[in-house]
Amino acid sequence: MKLFASPQDCETAFYEALEKSDLEAMMAVWADDEEVMCIHPGGARLVGHAAVREAWRRLFEGGARLTVHVGQIVAMQSMMMATHSVHEFIAVRGEARPAAPVIATNVYVRSGGGWKMVLHHGSPSARVEAPPPPEGRPKVLH
Amino acid sequence: MKLFASPQDCETAFYEALEKSDLEAMMAVWADDEEVMCIHPGGARLVGHAAVREAWRRLFEGGARLTVHVGQIVAMQSMMMATHSVHEFIAVRGEARPAAPVIATNVYVRSGGGWKMVLHHGSPSARVEAPPPPEGRPKVLH
Repeated sequence: MKLFASPQDCETAFYEALEKSDLEAMMAVWADDEEVMCIHPGGARLVGHAAVREAWRRLFEGGARLTVHVGQIVAMQSMMMATHSVHEFIAVRGEARPAAPVIATNVYVRSGGGWKMVLHHGSPSARVEAPPPPEGRPKVLH
Repeated sequence: MKLFASPQDCETAFYEALEKSDLEAMMAVWADDEEVMCIHPGGARLVGHAAVREAWRRLFEGGARLTVHVGQIVAMQSMMMATHSVHEFIAVRGEARPAAPVIATNVYVRSGGGWKMVLHHGSPSARVEAPPPPEGRPKVLH
């Protein structure tokens, strides 16, 4: 089982897995728990490791290659739980227009010595400022 | 300063304040912190007590009387932080059609002996099941 030393490590792995459409890497980020929750933009709330996995499997099987930039992180952390709010800028490679920005809330818990994701709630927002042009962009992921 | 003995007490007060359009009761729910965050459905992310207050003030000044039902709560709690995921069914009194269901993530932290809200992230979802008819409805708020 992969262990993440901090919520940020876990978050970085989450967005790397998303960018690579790597299902095993994605599910290594999530707690193996019946109460994990994932809300994809506009979608229903998925509850439980199996339901969350199945939704990512379907998303990834389309084979779209994504470019993911994450910015404006606001983090709140206690000993055993952490909440990050981020803005996601996701583009499908080969498509001229980026998708609408997404505001995401990511919640992590610490257990067994490592941090895992327990909640991802993404929602589209037309009212998020577009990221600055590439040269000045604070690129979290490569 | 109002203290809430549990995240659930805080959440109940949040939805009661929403239903009453009571700005002071609403802000008594929130931590007095520069990092509190509120995302209204489809809106931008508001950060900080002052920005969150101003948005609620504007929402409430319209004087709409709301009926709020909250259900399907999934709660995760550690010693100092708690995360609740809920479905909100909000209707404006006098309007025949309810608004779209909202999926909300609410995060609470414990400090100074009480619990306060630090994050509310609401997003509309057409893919949430409508609540059961009133007679069978698990009504959390009155």
